[in-house]
Amino acid sequence: MLRVGVIGASGYGGGELVRVLSGHPFVKLSYLTSETNKGKDIGYSWPNMRGVVKLECESYKAEAAIKKCDLVFMARDKGWAMNEAARLLNGGLKIVDLSADFRLRDPLVYEEWYNLAHTATELLNEAVFGLPELYHDQIADARLIANPGCYVTGAILALAPLLKNEIINPGSIIVDAKSGVSGAGRSSYKRDYHFPELNENVKAYNIGAHRHTPEIEQELSALADQDLNISFTPHLIPITRGILTTAYADVTAQVVSTESLTEIYREFYKTSPFVVILDPGEYPATKSTVGSNFCQIGMKFDPRTDRVVVVSAIDNLMKGAAGQAVQNMNLMAGFDETAGLMYPGVCA
Amino acid sequence: MLRVGVIGASGYGGGELVRVLSGHPFVKLSYLTSETNKGKDIGYSWPNMRGVVKLECESYKAEAAIKKCDLVFMARDKGWAMNEAARLLNGGLKIVDLSADFRLRDPLVYEEWYNLAHTATELLNEAVFGLPELYHDQIADARLIANPGCYVTGAILALAPLLKNEIINPGSIIVDAKSGVSGAGRSSYKRDYHFPELNENVKAYNIGAHRHTPEIEQELSALADQDLNISFTPHLIPITRGILTTAYADVTAQVVSTESLTEIYREFYKTSPFVVILDPGEYPATKSTVGSNFCQIGMKFDPRTDRVVVVSAIDNLMKGAAGQAVQNMNLMAGFDETAGLMYPGVCA
Amino acid sequence: MLRVGVIGASGYGGGELVRVLSGHPFVKLSYLTSETNKGKDIGYSWPNMRGVVKLECESYKAEAAIKKCDLVFMARDKGWAMNEAARLLNGGLKIVDLSADFRLRDPLVYEEWYNLAHTATELLNEAVFGLPELYHDQIADARLIANPGCYVTGAILALAPLLKNEIINPGSIIVDAKSGVSGAGRSSYKRDYHFPELNENVKAYNIGAHRHTPEIEQELSALADQDLNISFTPHLIPITRGILTTAYADVTAQVVSTESLTEIYREFYKTSPFVVILDPGEYPATKSTVGSNFCQIGMKFDPRTDRVVVVSAIDNLMKGAAGQAVQNMNLMAGFDETAGLMYPGVCA
Amino acid sequence: MLRVGVIGASGYGGGELVRVLSGHPFVKLSYLTSETNKGKDIGYSWPNMRGVVKLECESYKAEAAIKKCDLVFMARDKGWAMNEAARLLNGGLKIVDLSADFRLRDPLVYEEWYNLAHTATELLNEAVFGLPELYHDQIADARLIANPGCYVTGAILALAPLLKNEIINPGSIIVDAKSGVSGAGRSSYKRDYHFPELNENVKAYNIGAHRHTPEIEQELSALADQDLNISFTPHLIPITRGILTTAYADVTAQVVSTESLTEIYREFYKTSPFVVILDPGEYPATKSTVGSNFCQIGMKFDPRTDRVVVVSAIDNLMKGAAGQAVQNMNLMAGFDETAGLMYPGVCA
Repeated sequence: MLRVGVIGASGYGGGELVRVLSGHPFVKLSYLTSETNKGKDIGYSWPNMRGVVKLECESYKAEAAIKKCDLVFMARDKGWAMNEAARLLNGGLKIVDLSADFRLRDPLVYEEWYNLAHTATELLNEAVFGLPELYHDQIADARLIANPGCYVTGAILALAPLLKNEIINPGSIIVDAKSGVSGAGRSSYKRDYHFPELNENVKAYNIGAHRHTPEIEQELSALADQDLNISFTPHLIPITRGILTTAYADVTAQVVSTESLTEIYREFYKTSPFVVILDPGEYPATKSTVGSNFCQIGMKFDPRTDRVVVVSAIDNLMKGAAGQAVQNMNLMAGFDETAGLMYPGVCA
Repeated sequence: MLRVGVIGASGYGGGELVRVLSGHPFVKLSYLTSETNKGKDIGYSWPNMRGVVKLECESYKAEAAIKKCDLVFMARDKGWAMNEAARLLNGGLKIVDLSADFRLRDPLVYEEWYNLAHTATELLNEAVFGLPELYHDQIADARLIANPGCYVTGAILALAPLLKNEIINPGSIIVDAKSGVSGAGRSSYKRDYHFPELNENVKAYNIGAHRHTPEIEQELSALADQDLNISFTPHLIPITRGILTTAYADVTAQVVSTESLTEIYREFYKTSPFVVILDPGEYPATKSTVGSNFCQIGMKFDPRTDRVVVVSAIDNLMKGAAGQAVQNMNLMAGFDETAGLMYPGVCA
Repeated sequence: MLRVGVIGASGYGGGELVRVLSGHPFVKLSYLTSETNKGKDIGYSWPNMRGVVKLECESYKAEAAIKKCDLVFMARDKGWAMNEAARLLNGGLKIVDLSADFRLRDPLVYEEWYNLAHTATELLNEAVFGLPELYHDQIADARLIANPGCYVTGAILALAPLLKNEIINPGSIIVDAKSGVSGAGRSSYKRDYHFPELNENVKAYNIGAHRHTPEIEQELSALADQDLNISFTPHLIPITRGILTTAYADVTAQVVSTESLTEIYREFYKTSPFVVILDPGEYPATKSTVGSNFCQIGMKFDPRTDRVVVVSAIDNLMKGAAGQAVQNMNLMAGFDETAGLMYPGVCA
Repeated sequence: MLRVGVIGASGYGGGELVRVLSGHPFVKLSYLTSETNKGKDIGYSWPNMRGVVKLECESYKAEAAIKKCDLVFMARDKGWAMNEAARLLNGGLKIVDLSADFRLRDPLVYEEWYNLAHTATELLNEAVFGLPELYHDQIADARLIANPGCYVTGAILALAPLLKNEIINPGSIIVDAKSGVSGAGRSSYKRDYHFPELNENVKAYNIGAHRHTPEIEQELSALADQDLNISFTPHLIPITRGILTTAYADVTAQVVSTESLTEIYREFYKTSPFVVILDPGEYPATKSTVGSNFCQIGMKFDPRTDRVVVVSAIDNLMKGAAGQAVQNMNLMAGFDETAGLMYPGVCA
């Protein structure tokens, strides 16, 4: 059994990690930390765990992590992982970091978008971007995984086949994303996320300025083999979980139909067990992914505008965070990629 | 007092008409119809009306409408108004029709998108598209108003200043709209709108194929003075009321900033009492418009992509239906444009 | 025109006061205060007000209130009004206080439940409990009104006719209330009210210990002419506005049916314009009252258990706060009781 | 592997059965039926299943069920199971029926509350009421299980320890339940469950007349060893899943405190793996049970009224339907009671 730890277990990402890992056939949850709820059982942070998981949350200590774990998930705010990663790697641990610290290859881009100097630039080359649908083999060999942002996962999975197959104009990409509020985190209960303010409401925020923008651009540029900028507009909608990403791009290839596009997507993702390509005429709903690690994708080629519209749905806490992190762990540990993850989301 | 009737008072549009008109200082609600709830007081269809409005819903009869009303609102399904309008106009009534029947100038376009032959093509020239921000004076002189679709109102108000001022490439427009479920109507309770299916869910539908598409294109083409096609993607989100429209377009003009765009919008709408242009950096939320006739608009010029993103928020049942219909009535009757409508939406 | 001020205009109660008063035919909004948003227009605190109300929020100063107002609404937290009321009354103002400070006649009960010594006990005799359905005439003569708590209004209106007519055992009363989250206030955005925690969730809280308990008991005891204790359980449900109160009591009177009970309620409330008694077989829904000052009541006599179940629905921010406060103002100022309030809630 | 079938797989109960059974270590899903979606893969009825479960839904045929299954779950409307059970039992199958057909021991009571003559009265004696916390051993020996109603499960688990220990007056019980809308079923999309009508709304329905009333009374009477009637009021709240049950009763025993009550509950449920008794001062939230088979219970003794208030939370589709059905199957098949069910609900 792989001994795993979750650092930051009382946040949404951390809680979902505990939930998923508690049912994983090949791991043993051996270390949980929470600064706010230290000394308390995980059932205090997460009442849903009672009767199933019983483990005390400790205050983080590097030595304890090194002693108790083979692999740790870091689920804390930006800026924390880059200060702790080297120590734990040196202690022999593998790391899946759910923060933004190791996602951007260029530390200046990190600094620009996060207003924070990067303190572990020497690890940026080693860190692997943890999107298994693109970096399957590198992940298997990695010690340090940068788990992608939630919006990023939805956007890249929607667009990768188009860029890889040179079907669209890379400069024409527009990504309009609708997210549930859990993406804001559990301790960020400011007025914007106060129930009466957000319920029965929808709004855009950080237009053209959201921190996931450079991360999307970095990966799409790599796929397109050229630098590109995108328009990215995130929206908050009154759901707890789920991101629906509607992506638009101008088609440049000669012949195209929704049917042929669908085939291209199915080919591209044929070895990706968590990507479901819907039939032509079907579009995904976030509800179909709630609680699961799946991404569902539907699309439409619109001959009136010569544009393609691709819609992807994920659970932002699962394929957008904890589920993907466990998928990465599976690859790193040599387990079956789907171990502990191959179940559907809830019906309704 | 202007004697007004509401045909189809038990639907959402009809209900809101009754609500708004019941507080209007210059009208008398003199005729309500409902085929499903005929013979019953309006408080049966709308329990919220009890204690305020007391009037029986009748089964529609043209003679009764003509006898009891000076102006009627038609709030029934597509295909009904075009068969009844001539008779009521001949009877001396003015009409505000909330259906799609008189919105599209070209009957072939209507037929193509609605699968219905138009039966009153002779009235299409006379009908005025009831968007007061564009057709203020024509509305004042009209006998027959085609009240715009809800998505259409949100999209046009977001984009009109850009086209009129030749700031964008007309072929580059993408409209991504997020709507509350009341837009589906009150009697359309199929599984798609069943509470457990839609709650905690978001999805796109009718991509590139929604019936409001030709209506948006007709009006934007007129503003651009050239034929244009748009990408229009409607989404259902789990709110009852509200449409947030996020519109994207490539900027072609030389100099532009969010501040200068904001000025252009304020100039364009300076005589439009129900359009509120937010300050640079502010984006609208649908909640701010719930229950009111206002449209709030915010925008961003993104120099990284040379694209403009404009976001508009309306209450789909008010500025997107009943409120706008009353605004049209005010103009037709020579009342102040804001009579009975100048109140804010609820706080929270 | 009566010159009125709202102290605490950026909270939910204060915001709704501004909304309602802005449409009131006989008052002039002359003074708004907000400590958090001082120096800013009310449209900053409440974007829904833009285009309708334009007035700067000031930092509260007693002299300014006295100079600019004939009557003020105090919409701040407990403990504030009791320190300011005397000064403003001496300055010639009338006061409607929306906090708990003047609701409990016995200062020791206040101290026990609010952990706060009462600092204005000399005003407790003068203060009138602002439930117009019970204290209509005293309100008309009052200088200082204690506007009832939201749960309190729902509970008393549901139970008053039963106690006044000696139909039930006063010791058997159980009140099970379900409230929207706006009742928690606008600045109380702790984790309990964080959207992802409350959405898709329902829970009880403060069982037998909620601060509205002694207030309900005080008023029901007065109606029963004997001291009584009740079981009161508040619940939070994922809606923004509305309180549904389900009250249970053992019937002691000889003959009773749902029909006869309904008649008793209609007789009791025959001069109360904002109480709607539904027909036998009908039960109220909070949605029917959203945005309005109405209370809707339905009931059932259950012969199997010899118990009566009464259900009342109100908008907690209107009949449970701002609407009722304006109704009180109307009586104090000699206006029609319904002035500025006689409109239905939104349809859907 | 036990070969199991789900009859009625496209409803909410049936869908959750497929979801739970697809991850069960000791069963093989061998037969699915759906009359509405016959001939189509389960992924058509339930898009969330795609990529995980692949099995065609057939039109129900008794012979097919007998041939393909060892045990079937019947998840169809009332009146269906009583006409099919004998045939399948005779064919050697075991049955867990999720409808009401075998829950009421007295066929006249069934007839009275369901307006339907019972057609399989000979099986009523054999059928075991499938609440494992009360009938653990009988379930293990049964061929035919009547899976309890969702409200019933919540109410009985909340009240059983009080009655069994003779702590309360059996005639004083009041059950106030708040349910998510999935309890109404998936194909019952009438206006009452139309999203815009139910969202931002709460209402009581069927007061004193809900069909789960006699079922609750039957089981509570057995526990109390005397006939009793209860007041039962169900409410609809705008959530998809979950039932919160707030139960009230007059305490008759001499000494009682919340702490001692808590101990009594823990003793009563010490062998029940899916019942979690919270600490004094804690109350359950439905969110903690979403997607899991757990029931969480909190309570309060109120010395002011000598009443006890007990609150239970379940997922109506899991412990209130599919989860409990699988728990019953586990006992019937000699599996560990928790097999395939020992996981927490989602975090948020």
